[in-house]
Amino acid sequence: MEAIRIPVRTGRPYDILLGRGLLTHAGALIREVQKGQRAFIVCDSNVGPLYAKTVSDSLVRAGYRTVSVFTFPAGEKYKRLETVTHMYTALARNHFDRHDVIVALGGGVTGDMAGFAAATWMRGVDFVQIPTSLLAQVDSSIGGKTGVDIDEGKNMVGAFRQPIRVIADIDTLSTLPQEYVTDGMGEVVKSACIRDRELLELLERDCAFSPDLLTDVVRRCMLVKCRIVENDEHENGERKLLNFGHTLGHALEKHLNYSGISHGCAVAVGMATITAASERQGLSEPGTAVRLCALLKKFGLPTTPPVPLSVYLEAVKADKKCVGGAVDLVVLKRLGEAVVCRVKTEEIDTFLRG
Amino acid sequence: MEAIRIPVRTGRPYDILLGRGLLTHAGALIREVQKGQRAFIVCDSNVGPLYAKTVSDSLVRAGYRTVSVFTFPAGEKYKRLETVTHMYTALARNHFDRHDVIVALGGGVTGDMAGFAAATWMRGVDFVQIPTSLLAQVDSSIGGKTGVDIDEGKNMVGAFRQPIRVIADIDTLSTLPQEYVTDGMGEVVKSACIRDRELLELLERDCAFSPDLLTDVVRRCMLVKCRIVENDEHENGERKLLNFGHTLGHALEKHLNYSGISHGCAVAVGMATITAASERQGLSEPGTAVRLCALLKKFGLPTTPPVPLSVYLEAVKADKKCVGGAVDLVVLKRLGEAVVCRVKTEEIDTFLRG
Repeated sequence: MEAIRIPVRTGRPYDILLGRGLLTHAGALIREVQKGQRAFIVCDSNVGPLYAKTVSDSLVRAGYRTVSVFTFPAGEKYKRLETVTHMYTALARNHFDRHDVIVALGGGVTGDMAGFAAATWMRGVDFVQIPTSLLAQVDSSIGGKTGVDIDEGKNMVGAFRQPIRVIADIDTLSTLPQEYVTDGMGEVVKSACIRDRELLELLERDCAFSPDLLTDVVRRCMLVKCRIVENDEHENGERKLLNFGHTLGHALEKHLNYSGISHGCAVAVGMATITAASERQGLSEPGTAVRLCALLKKFGLPTTPPVPLSVYLEAVKADKKCVGGAVDLVVLKRLGEAVVCRVKTEEIDTFLRG
Repeated sequence: MEAIRIPVRTGRPYDILLGRGLLTHAGALIREVQKGQRAFIVCDSNVGPLYAKTVSDSLVRAGYRTVSVFTFPAGEKYKRLETVTHMYTALARNHFDRHDVIVALGGGVTGDMAGFAAATWMRGVDFVQIPTSLLAQVDSSIGGKTGVDIDEGKNMVGAFRQPIRVIADIDTLSTLPQEYVTDGMGEVVKSACIRDRELLELLERDCAFSPDLLTDVVRRCMLVKCRIVENDEHENGERKLLNFGHTLGHALEKHLNYSGISHGCAVAVGMATITAASERQGLSEPGTAVRLCALLKKFGLPTTPPVPLSVYLEAVKADKKCVGGAVDLVVLKRLGEAVVCRVKTEEIDTFLRG
């Protein structure tokens, strides 16, 4: 087992470990930084049958006395307080205490929700991210954002809580259905667009990703995210750049009840829409939108929404990032360089639709 | 309006303001440290009719554009995720954003729950504590512990979140029913026992509290709590001293379904029980238990539980402070000086029942 180690220098610093075949060693890798008696694995009904036993066995071998597996039905619609409440009950029944560890094994939904449980169980316990989807490896497992959705919006309830370790096993990506890979590519393209022009060129150039090339792509995305999060752990400034494509994407997901479009596809549509608008306004280098759309299409990502923008514009204005009557939209000055652009709520319509 | 200012040097420092007639000026006192557009007052059905309008009007005068009042039914049994979920819905409907402020107006239940909503709404917003009960003024409004109860235990779900200001108006104590004053005296006696022998002697000496004397009592308790919290914000060491009487008290409350005994009375029973035990074990100066019991009785507090200890002993072992098969019980070396004493779960019975 060889792993790339990426230190993340947040308030509570931690390491990301990236490599192949790490899942079998997860227990030992967790034990290096965690000394509790009990481990509580959270996974969904897709990931559980694939990997829960491997991770659970490794935790037992590493010395955890009690290892429980909490499985919830797969899907964003279960990222709710109700599911977290079931976790609390299971944690209580397992006599899970402040020195124990929650292990999020799966994609973004699992990590967000298990992280929120870890942030709030007994006012905060250790948790480890084991992201098994491309989206979770390159984005959601890093940075300490946790949360659940409520009827009124995505991630409206949550907390900042850094994991004590992130273990990303590239091999788990090989079992992903194509639609999940596509979904993750939305965030990969985003990372490249906002901060890493070399990655962007690599994505434009290469078609087939070998495991080594994929590891490099994931590593580059992780570095983009880490460096931004380190500078702005609680999203007061620079971290907003990570929202490129997300304000529109979230609104579209919400309008479609979180079931009509995947997160990565919604972000792709958001990036394409905002970049077309910002180029019209002269904020982006000419040609940016065309090149971005070509790249999105190359990876099977959509560039136009399934319903017209006018239909979900109200949801954009209700976004939680709309503060004091304005929203900070992220636009590309050019590919590889993003800036924040504050737009008044009443001007969003004109800004986006020209 | 004259106010005593007590600075609290936690990670995010803030001031406690203590005095008479502060409620009318609450808006201005909040505005000094908070620049949002919307204020969201949380109170229960007892406190709302008394003070919500005064505070709401003062917030409007201070420049808040939207001031909403969220009222929930009074009682510990409403300190649940369900009530917080209703708060989230109301916050969303009011378009409450990251720059706005939640104001907890009331006792411990209100502060704990409003604080938890503030810790988790959009991953954390500002909140102000306006404690109107003796218990909340001397204890629960200070230190950043927030939380709700679940079936399996009290405060099992929560977060650490410091308020941006605490405004304690002594005049609100004059409208308290006697049982609430008695309840608060449990925590006052606790503060004196663990850290302030002068306060203890004052309590033994004086019978009738004038407003000035009451202000001094509250101020002394606040100082005990602040100094301990400053040294140990996240309860890894010294802060455990504040749990004197609480491990047994919580277990008793839980056994009686949080409706058979008030928090202060449960803590009083807990303090009397543990001190009798620690004196038997030779850990406390002889005479400590008798003197403590006399003081508790003076303020109308119970010293024996309504059901025998054996009946709720299992609940003691299930306490969330039971970590790694042991629990840290707080015992008095002598009045005014507390220490932590680690007892193995299987020895709790012998320790307590000798």
